[in-house]
Amino acid sequence: MAVHASQPRERTPPPTAPMPRHPTYAPSVASMSGSVYSTLASKLARLEGEVYPLHVGDTWMEPPEGCRMEELRTAQYPGMHRYSPVEGHPALLDRIVEHVRARMAVPTERAHVLVTTGATGALGAMLGALLTPGEEVLLLAPYWPLISGIVRSFHGVPVPVPFLGLDSAEELVEAVRARLTERTVALYLNTPNNPTGRVLPREWMEALAALARREGLWLLSDEVYEHYVYTGEHVYARTLAPERTLSAWSFSKAYGMAGNRCGWVVGPAEAVEQLRKVSTHAFYSAPTASQLAGVRALQGPGLEWAAAAAAQYADTGRKVAALLGVPPPQGSTFLFVDVARHLDERGLSGFLERCVENHLLVAPGPSFGPFPHHVRLCFTCSPPDVVLRGAQVLARLMGR
Amino acid sequence: MAVHASQPRERTPPPTAPMPRHPTYAPSVASMSGSVYSTLASKLARLEGEVYPLHVGDTWMEPPEGCRMEELRTAQYPGMHRYSPVEGHPALLDRIVEHVRARMAVPTERAHVLVTTGATGALGAMLGALLTPGEEVLLLAPYWPLISGIVRSFHGVPVPVPFLGLDSAEELVEAVRARLTERTVALYLNTPNNPTGRVLPREWMEALAALARREGLWLLSDEVYEHYVYTGEHVYARTLAPERTLSAWSFSKAYGMAGNRCGWVVGPAEAVEQLRKVSTHAFYSAPTASQLAGVRALQGPGLEWAAAAAAQYADTGRKVAALLGVPPPQGSTFLFVDVARHLDERGLSGFLERCVENHLLVAPGPSFGPFPHHVRLCFTCSPPDVVLRGAQVLARLMGR
Repeated sequence: MAVHASQPRERTPPPTAPMPRHPTYAPSVASMSGSVYSTLASKLARLEGEVYPLHVGDTWMEPPEGCRMEELRTAQYPGMHRYSPVEGHPALLDRIVEHVRARMAVPTERAHVLVTTGATGALGAMLGALLTPGEEVLLLAPYWPLISGIVRSFHGVPVPVPFLGLDSAEELVEAVRARLTERTVALYLNTPNNPTGRVLPREWMEALAALARREGLWLLSDEVYEHYVYTGEHVYARTLAPERTLSAWSFSKAYGMAGNRCGWVVGPAEAVEQLRKVSTHAFYSAPTASQLAGVRALQGPGLEWAAAAAAQYADTGRKVAALLGVPPPQGSTFLFVDVARHLDERGLSGFLERCVENHLLVAPGPSFGPFPHHVRLCFTCSPPDVVLRGAQVLARLMGR
Repeated sequence: MAVHASQPRERTPPPTAPMPRHPTYAPSVASMSGSVYSTLASKLARLEGEVYPLHVGDTWMEPPEGCRMEELRTAQYPGMHRYSPVEGHPALLDRIVEHVRARMAVPTERAHVLVTTGATGALGAMLGALLTPGEEVLLLAPYWPLISGIVRSFHGVPVPVPFLGLDSAEELVEAVRARLTERTVALYLNTPNNPTGRVLPREWMEALAALARREGLWLLSDEVYEHYVYTGEHVYARTLAPERTLSAWSFSKAYGMAGNRCGWVVGPAEAVEQLRKVSTHAFYSAPTASQLAGVRALQGPGLEWAAAAAAQYADTGRKVAALLGVPPPQGSTFLFVDVARHLDERGLSGFLERCVENHLLVAPGPSFGPFPHHVRLCFTCSPPDVVLRGAQVLARLMGR
């Protein structure tokens, strides 16, 4: 005799034909492309001599001393291999609160913070908490490449809003407004920007915040490169519209800890409570040892490390830009280069293949939005001398 | 002038009224309850004297020596704080392949494996890859409490199939069939079972695999307690229906590494490729140091640790069961106790409050499915003497 659930539900009778679902998948996922690099990367792996994997977004440097895994001792942190509270380790929440308060006058308490598996987990929690299937998210483009797939993972619709070539806040606002529909839920931006190396100017940020308020949008602000500003100033979106801004921060890029998978969200307490439900079901809690490493980084060594890294990154970025004949990066660790004039009939994929034949990997523009003639290179993923030799390869392919 | 996306989309004209979305959330998330323990836990924190937090599902033991964070040195593993490949560190993939091959004759290669942020990340990747909004997942109940929220995170519908009180494989199959609809995509089971301590018998597993094949269902098999079987045998679902089984495994419970957030999926290569798209967008890659710790655990120390832990857990579990007058656990680290006869007019919440007044936390039955009169206790989350004193509190409240 079957035991029945306490809440009976209306159901169609069991069909006699087999269900249609194995071996099929959610169409939204099946239609995503897999890794764009794997074929090219395997070609690269077969080459002899020095290679330039400038498609990776990471740093070549080890994290600050005092903040490495080998420095976290079980005797000092009993239970450091056990779960942390889902919202984050209390010691880390306190350091994050201090870090945020030091950067903005917006009231910030533990309840405004959620510790996540990097900015990826942070943005996943945001979109999981906000999106009903079919709703749309505006993405300032070019954008961090995972954001589009995160929106689609939760059955939302990513809507790129290209900003390359726009000259004013008014043009930007007009570009956003032209893409608003009654299904638009949020506006995503990333500053300092991956992939362009741009730092969004204060007027742009203020105009976007005002637009979000006027139109009832959430503002999702990805600020993982906050320490990497070489020209101008970084404007924290939360200072402009704290009631509707969810910001993603990360230890990954800030302190050379991408493999630790630790970052955080700051936002309205009520929103953070909703995000926490999603993050609990996505990864339960961020890795405990990574959180303890984060506590140490925020106690001082991280900021020193970031300042030294920023000086070196800025220098390398300027040299790479000069080799390529493009403006130097204002921030982040990337340059986004228009190679339209150097494409043959095979288009961008032919250009990427020529790069690989010359031992260079760069990331294709379409990963970042509707940019079929651009490539992105990261100038921090290998030591400066390697990056510069890789950039020389690219410069040569661009006829310089 | 606005720059337009390369693919124009049909849109409704921009409305003049504000968008309705801030400050609202996805209804599927807003309707989830937050932590059921937080209120009770904060009461417990104010009590003086020994407390018994037996609601937590974890181990009190530190992980195997040689496999702790402090033993992973940057000099030995350069770049161990950087990203790993999204599918998993190659060395870990190889150890997992060996581990799986040693347990089943099903062909297993790297392409059948995806490393994830624990079983939580593993099951999230499965459901993200399989579910279209509104589709249903049958959950053998009582179930691991997060699975219901994971299904809802991806806009699916969890459908509990209670198995308590069923005496045969035929009854179980009938219970499952009674809940099949044309929207049913998958059947989830968890063995050795959290929360009941049951190990599903071979006949049940065979009957479920045959049913899944007949009805075209995916079989999602959560086997994170594979090492913790005290009576009977653990049957790996993948040995019965490899073409449709996605199995979740984890370092968390197996080797005392819950805070490391590392586990894995084994399944058909084509399915793993789809799951990888979801996991990449959920957490990018599993923490690199945690993966290296996993390599070390699977090289030997983990299995030795698990064997010693299993002997101790079995002993404690038997003693707890005797105190409570229930059958001893067959596996896992839990007992699920019917307290119907001990409830007053306040129902289960009153019973939980009486537990807290007596310094004991247990998990409420409704977290695990339609079980309003049960509580779960974990007999491994504190040292055996603490657990036994906590169990005595529960026995007293049950009039023993």
